[in-house]
Amino acid sequence: MTDDSDLTARVQDSFDPERTDPRLRELLVPLVQHLHDYAREVRLTHAEWEQMIDFLTRTGQACDDLRQEFVLLSDVLGLSMLVEQLEADAAPGGTPQTVLGPFHLVESPPREQGDDISAGVPGERALVTGRVLSVTGEPVAGALVDAWQSDTDGNYDVQRESDEIGQGRGLFTTGDDGSFRFVTVVPSDYPIPTDGPVGELLAATGRHPNRPAHIHFQVVAPGFALLTTHLFVAGSVYLDSDAVFAATPDLVEEFVPDDDAEQAARNGLSTPFPHARIELVLTPEHARAS
Amino acid sequence: MTDDSDLTARVQDSFDPERTDPRLRELLVPLVQHLHDYAREVRLTHAEWEQMIDFLTRTGQACDDLRQEFVLLSDVLGLSMLVEQLEADAAPGGTPQTVLGPFHLVESPPREQGDDISAGVPGERALVTGRVLSVTGEPVAGALVDAWQSDTDGNYDVQRESDEIGQGRGLFTTGDDGSFRFVTVVPSDYPIPTDGPVGELLAATGRHPNRPAHIHFQVVAPGFALLTTHLFVAGSVYLDSDAVFAATPDLVEEFVPDDDAEQAARNGLSTPFPHARIELVLTPEHARAS
Repeated sequence: MTDDSDLTARVQDSFDPERTDPRLRELLVPLVQHLHDYAREVRLTHAEWEQMIDFLTRTGQACDDLRQEFVLLSDVLGLSMLVEQLEADAAPGGTPQTVLGPFHLVESPPREQGDDISAGVPGERALVTGRVLSVTGEPVAGALVDAWQSDTDGNYDVQRESDEIGQGRGLFTTGDDGSFRFVTVVPSDYPIPTDGPVGELLAATGRHPNRPAHIHFQVVAPGFALLTTHLFVAGSVYLDSDAVFAATPDLVEEFVPDDDAEQAARNGLSTPFPHARIELVLTPEHARAS
Repeated sequence: MTDDSDLTARVQDSFDPERTDPRLRELLVPLVQHLHDYAREVRLTHAEWEQMIDFLTRTGQACDDLRQEFVLLSDVLGLSMLVEQLEADAAPGGTPQTVLGPFHLVESPPREQGDDISAGVPGERALVTGRVLSVTGEPVAGALVDAWQSDTDGNYDVQRESDEIGQGRGLFTTGDDGSFRFVTVVPSDYPIPTDGPVGELLAATGRHPNRPAHIHFQVVAPGFALLTTHLFVAGSVYLDSDAVFAATPDLVEEFVPDDDAEQAARNGLSTPFPHARIELVLTPEHARAS
């Protein structure tokens, strides 16, 4: 039976080494250690434990097909960004990784080069052109580039129940030169959803919920590691106090006025148009040490 | 903006000392430290992070008015028992504290001394008699003693949807001598619910889900700390491998055959009847250091 001194060890020993996947055990034993060390360190009371159970329960129950409150919690605690940093550490040289965010919940519609992903939302049209490259500078043809963003009011399609899902989203396949391009509206800064448990946490700790304006990217290509990143809009407020700690100077790009008449015509724009350029550098596929 | 080295400190600094309750900040700053230290220590991958988000989400969504899967998760990770040990450390000398468990979800019906709390479930009737005492041995009159237990098949009322809620539960008020008594069936050992995420965790780690037979008690009395404890049935299997780490030698009591004809008549039993005696010792109300 349990005695006070060995509770932590008894829990850790309960994960049968013969019948537990070695990596799962490697994840669980330190988890129990940190969980118990934390409770002892702060001398967690029964009442506080009950509040935490209630908070986690409500966080799970706030999730549905179009909302992921646990990702949001991980984001505001900096865990999501840390996990991306650990991925990047494992394969250096690529574009910095950032958080996935809580809005990558639906499949982006496949689009053709130059398509307008914003699908009719109000706002000035802008061009995003990019290239997917290897760390040695070779273009990566046939890469799948998933882009998703809020509109000029800071809302994602999944937050506007009346609108078509897929607005502000596009899945592009890079050409032989690794390039992709799309038309969109310049996104706005916006608050993360504050009507759930995460909003309560931010309010209780004097934190603002805002994120600087950005476009999310996720890139998949055979032989390369998955890249999850952002393009942050230069000049956006909150670049220095991103609520989810993802803003990184290396990822800030400017939408500059462009007079290129050929590009304008090719993409259904008139000159001058705001134009942001981005390079997405992929690292080789790697087996993370387990 | 975030750079790799200071992410943890930046998250901790985001909890505004001027606008955050001091105890909340005392809980959050070490929480972020342990969370980040854990992720770095195990080199948590993005795929593993996604699995954890999914597990926590499903745990929250498995909860409803009659089920508390996050309490169950806390229980099987030993956190619930640790929190009770910390409560007991803060006010020594009382009956050992144990986990609340996930089945204290409904209000127990107020009952008279000697009532049969099992309300008609099959099984041999037994008597439980007890006294609520202070650490100095004084009887505590007017204490509210909440008792709840499974039936002889190991099910709680909330797990048997067809049955009346309140079966196996009773709320008693102690007499002038601190005493209470009730008739019941001797509970059985039973498995905790395994059809949710916690069951997956147990299966993946080669753990059995069983708890030794027990009756839960929670005692409230003015001027005393809340007591949450168990009476474990002597001879029950799993006393040495309780799935929630709550079994403690000090809390094991025997149901012994009793020939007392007066007690039998008073409680509607025939001799001999199984009889367990319990003392519930309350510690003074205390302000936990924060």
